[in-house]
Amino acid sequence: MKVLFADRMKNMKSSRIRELLKLTEQPDIISFAGGLPAAEHFPVEEMKEVSLKVLNEKGAQALQYATTEGYPPLRQIIAQRMSRDGIKITIDDLLILSGSQQGLDFAGKLFLNPGDKVICESPTYLGAINAFNAYQPQFIEVAMDEEGMKMDELEKTLAAHSDSKIIYTIPDFQNPTGRTMSLERRKKLVELATKYNIPIVEDNPYGELRFIGEKLPSLKSFDTAGIVIYLGTFSKTFCPGLRIGWVAASPEILQKFIIVKQSSDLHTSPTVQMQAAEFMQKYELDQHIEKIKATYRKRRQVMMETMEKEFPASCRFTRPEGGLFTWVQLPEGMDSSLILQKALEKKVAFVPGIDFFPNTALTNYFRLNYSCSTEEEIVEGIKRLA
Amino acid sequence: MKVLFADRMKNMKSSRIRELLKLTEQPDIISFAGGLPAAEHFPVEEMKEVSLKVLNEKGAQALQYATTEGYPPLRQIIAQRMSRDGIKITIDDLLILSGSQQGLDFAGKLFLNPGDKVICESPTYLGAINAFNAYQPQFIEVAMDEEGMKMDELEKTLAAHSDSKIIYTIPDFQNPTGRTMSLERRKKLVELATKYNIPIVEDNPYGELRFIGEKLPSLKSFDTAGIVIYLGTFSKTFCPGLRIGWVAASPEILQKFIIVKQSSDLHTSPTVQMQAAEFMQKYELDQHIEKIKATYRKRRQVMMETMEKEFPASCRFTRPEGGLFTWVQLPEGMDSSLILQKALEKKVAFVPGIDFFPNTALTNYFRLNYSCSTEEEIVEGIKRLA
Repeated sequence: MKVLFADRMKNMKSSRIRELLKLTEQPDIISFAGGLPAAEHFPVEEMKEVSLKVLNEKGAQALQYATTEGYPPLRQIIAQRMSRDGIKITIDDLLILSGSQQGLDFAGKLFLNPGDKVICESPTYLGAINAFNAYQPQFIEVAMDEEGMKMDELEKTLAAHSDSKIIYTIPDFQNPTGRTMSLERRKKLVELATKYNIPIVEDNPYGELRFIGEKLPSLKSFDTAGIVIYLGTFSKTFCPGLRIGWVAASPEILQKFIIVKQSSDLHTSPTVQMQAAEFMQKYELDQHIEKIKATYRKRRQVMMETMEKEFPASCRFTRPEGGLFTWVQLPEGMDSSLILQKALEKKVAFVPGIDFFPNTALTNYFRLNYSCSTEEEIVEGIKRLA
Repeated sequence: MKVLFADRMKNMKSSRIRELLKLTEQPDIISFAGGLPAAEHFPVEEMKEVSLKVLNEKGAQALQYATTEGYPPLRQIIAQRMSRDGIKITIDDLLILSGSQQGLDFAGKLFLNPGDKVICESPTYLGAINAFNAYQPQFIEVAMDEEGMKMDELEKTLAAHSDSKIIYTIPDFQNPTGRTMSLERRKKLVELATKYNIPIVEDNPYGELRFIGEKLPSLKSFDTAGIVIYLGTFSKTFCPGLRIGWVAASPEILQKFIIVKQSSDLHTSPTVQMQAAEFMQKYELDQHIEKIKATYRKRRQVMMETMEKEFPASCRFTRPEGGLFTWVQLPEGMDSSLILQKALEKKVAFVPGIDFFPNTALTNYFRLNYSCSTEEEIVEGIKRLA
């Protein structure tokens, strides 16, 4: 039969990364393609303990339907962690999500009519492009440099597109570039968004994974107008398999997120929410994060050093102060998709940069991940790639 | 600030049931409002065992990112269970969802442009109305009787609205009416949908909870054209807190569901999927379901008998052969919302019928749930209500 799908489905395609990840499940491939945390740091023993504790003490609650907003002790822990970072927040400002990817989908659902404008960094996270595409927006890309989104460019963009509906940004260790927005630009971004009355979606999956330099305040911490929608997740600092993220927003906006969550999947599993809360009550998440950071810092260092040694001088790459990714620029005219084909023959994988640009089709970039390969694999993989 | 939301948000409101559920968390209320399974049957001890087993044997996999399609051994178990019920299916025809509510949201996303027509039973599941409303459809209600959706009415509706995009139905122990579609009508429904080339969304959360009479084949088992999209869930037969549902559909349609799942929340938690699979490999889910059914059968019986004895003759109610709900019809002109106010003063709760009609505003109905109150509570609650 010929099935008639909705118009939005024309925009939606399978994520090339997820398709690539399937390929890289072959054990002999050195994959710099994914964004997976290092599995050796998952606190498996501690999770056994807290899983038993949850089922022993609150088994019926863990396995029953729950409220949409999320498990209050978990929201309390998140509110405390965000408050420590200078964000004024209580548990009533928080909704638990099934990963922060869900927050991107919901932001699209809340704000975007077909044709509405989304301002984003160029390049930007391809999962955000895919999530927003379901709502048929136009993307307006704003150029970046080493300090993140360029504010002079943003100002011009806003003047020309003052009807934009949201500004999407990853201020810390951006995916795919690894770049971090400077303090000055953070303040300027909130100021401009407030002036133009356009909500900012601040996506912060990597902020706690800083290896070098001082932590910068989140956009949300400068938000006096209730204009910043903050998306957080435990997928990079704890365990992605639990699928726990959250959104923090002003009451008017959060109420809409809650309504959308109800109709989309009722609520996130209380089983995993209670396990995460028990873990964080018993153990120090910060200590766990320090362990992860120590590993990633070394892996990043090895990747940087090997690239400097092995890559031709015509290849440039970013030097992230945290997070999971570096972004490689090839000489103009080169096509990283063709290089990927050759790389796969040599059993190395990465993600071509083209999918991270919603409009422009720049072919001479690719993204490398350093968090889930050993130091030996990184040296070997970069050599093969070079 | 004045926030500009998308047009679709005008249609979306908070589910009155979920708001009501918050109210009924007061311990002295006898609530017939929710659709919660009886928590005393949750296999807490067995879940402790399988949670440990999963973390012991496959801890890193359980806590890591996973494929969008879902955990293959769980899909295998589901495919076997569905095959046993006469549905031709393999694991490649299945996608794991975060509860079957997510399947309703995704069906809306896949098929509905603003203004598109959804054909449904009158009344129908209010969670489906809310999920579809995000995509701004028109609902076309088709009248029901004791054998479910009336096929002569459907035939007229299809002739008048042959451009309808989906037909939504709950053939077994429908929510809210408790009614079951007859065998003859099931065949006719698939025949008509095939003739008009309109996909059917068959929502089957309660089908395995039959206390009386013979199990009827699903619509999917008559589907030769690949036109039936089957939504299943473990929320009523196992544990809703795990948030595990699934969709089975023809390859063309399933591929779109997978794309939508990727952009919406990447994948369902492997932690809970692996726990569910381990449980079903070690224990007989059917035995567990028999225990649940024995309890619900008695509770239903007590509710029916007490209503017959206590309710005035002008009140009619359905006699479900399974599932969780009965549907009470008051004399015309009465308003169940006003009765609810009085009932809450007497510490009894139910859901007024009005929200289950997407277009018509019939006030003289309400829904009663019998699965999560004890027999004593049912007797006492029905007496107070009478």
